[in-house]
Amino acid sequence: MTLKMTKDEVSALLDEVFPQIHEGGRCYSIDWIESGETQMRLKADNRHLRPGGTVSGPSMMALADLAAYVIILAELGPVALAVTTNLNINFLNKPGPGDLLGHCKILKKGKRLVVVDVGIRSEGQEALVAHATATYSIPPQ
Amino acid sequence: MTLKMTKDEVSALLDEVFPQIHEGGRCYSIDWIESGETQMRLKADNRHLRPGGTVSGPSMMALADLAAYVIILAELGPVALAVTTNLNINFLNKPGPGDLLGHCKILKKGKRLVVVDVGIRSEGQEALVAHATATYSIPPQ
Amino acid sequence: MTLKMTKDEVSALLDEVFPQIHEGGRCYSIDWIESGETQMRLKADNRHLRPGGTVSGPSMMALADLAAYVIILAELGPVALAVTTNLNINFLNKPGPGDLLGHCKILKKGKRLVVVDVGIRSEGQEALVAHATATYSIPPQ
Amino acid sequence: MTLKMTKDEVSALLDEVFPQIHEGGRCYSIDWIESGETQMRLKADNRHLRPGGTVSGPSMMALADLAAYVIILAELGPVALAVTTNLNINFLNKPGPGDLLGHCKILKKGKRLVVVDVGIRSEGQEALVAHATATYSIPPQ
Repeated sequence: MTLKMTKDEVSALLDEVFPQIHEGGRCYSIDWIESGETQMRLKADNRHLRPGGTVSGPSMMALADLAAYVIILAELGPVALAVTTNLNINFLNKPGPGDLLGHCKILKKGKRLVVVDVGIRSEGQEALVAHATATYSIPPQ
Repeated sequence: MTLKMTKDEVSALLDEVFPQIHEGGRCYSIDWIESGETQMRLKADNRHLRPGGTVSGPSMMALADLAAYVIILAELGPVALAVTTNLNINFLNKPGPGDLLGHCKILKKGKRLVVVDVGIRSEGQEALVAHATATYSIPPQ
Repeated sequence: MTLKMTKDEVSALLDEVFPQIHEGGRCYSIDWIESGETQMRLKADNRHLRPGGTVSGPSMMALADLAAYVIILAELGPVALAVTTNLNINFLNKPGPGDLLGHCKILKKGKRLVVVDVGIRSEGQEALVAHATATYSIPPQ
Repeated sequence: MTLKMTKDEVSALLDEVFPQIHEGGRCYSIDWIESGETQMRLKADNRHLRPGGTVSGPSMMALADLAAYVIILAELGPVALAVTTNLNINFLNKPGPGDLLGHCKILKKGKRLVVVDVGIRSEGQEALVAHATATYSIPPQ
């Protein structure tokens, strides 16, 4: 299966339509995109931290949501205006220092709904710090 | 039942331990706290907006998470270092212009887990724009 | 707003299309249906019980799912073949003896998705034993 | 890591404490247990079916919940009286004929909370029919 958009194309589109995610400094970036999978990176700075140096829950939710958006754009192309309908996240372990990586896989790619699975880890570590599943509604094209 | 902390005390504590939520300008505030319930307000600005003037999903997740944190502090007092373990959110309708209000109610106040329900509306409107449930783990005191 | 089906009509339709829910003896029934709300009853018997006389989690999930199905039929009529796409449930307190009541309210009634909220209590008790939210996909008519 | 209970021991314990899951005929069984993972099988019969020959949502929720219970028993031993606190399930594709397999993996094994991931497939098929995550509270031993 061929992707509809490359990593650079998705990245440029995000910059254009979601400039707010970079407000206060660029922190989210795409590591790679493959068929049905992507990895996003959060270079956490002061905005995302909580007491004790841990990354905030909402920053991880944003990472999961953004990773999902990226793989949907890559798979469906820029025509898709996917809307998040449900997001469920379990926080498992305190993230350590270093970047957070969100690994997103498509569980179902339907005509109306796309469901994804996102595992979040601190770079270089095996244990998950959080795990999310999310559903996106794809408007009629 | 008497609350362990007033609205002003919780607000001051948030400013102290979570200064990051105000980075880029103060936008989250507490409207009121009652027994088992609170209402938080998000005065959305450019950081929270998405194309079409709608408020971003992660901003609403942060509002729900923060409202839960507020009612737990008010109920359990500043000793509690509650940790979010699960958050599930359904996005229901596009928010209109104006502030978002998150109305949080405690569903269960256990010794180890607190579960809350959060309904999010645009101010002055009846329809929910999002609905979340979340679980917090309360460490042994 | 007028309902498309009465309680008796929905009940008869369930008997016809879901006879399996009554296999081993009738235990689920509809208490009432109003605009956007319904209450289902589970008269738990040996099939639903767990050690200590408590009702099993899957029995409560089935009660929540069925209550949602009932209000969707009542609101949309028998043409709707709604499909559950997501169900999230928090188990809050051990149910006591006696029937379980599932109070289901529609949170969003969209053209493609219906989202509901279900609170489950032991009859005559205030405290929730479980709380669920669920999403149903409505096929094109 | 060594498991605290074998497949046969867990199976015997389930028969003893959860005889109700076999009421109306034995349908759930354990395929295998490994470190942190198990596979449960649902041999669906008339009780679990819905119009069109599809397996009911609550039957899949029960499969997910039971698989989680099995791996927790195997990992923690019979002293554990784990209680389900949260279950989130996405229904992805209609199951075909044949047995359903629930593949359960531990995402986090904490002292107080265990979080699992369960993928459900029709035997011999690649596509997931459902995906669940669930949290269990482990009482103090």
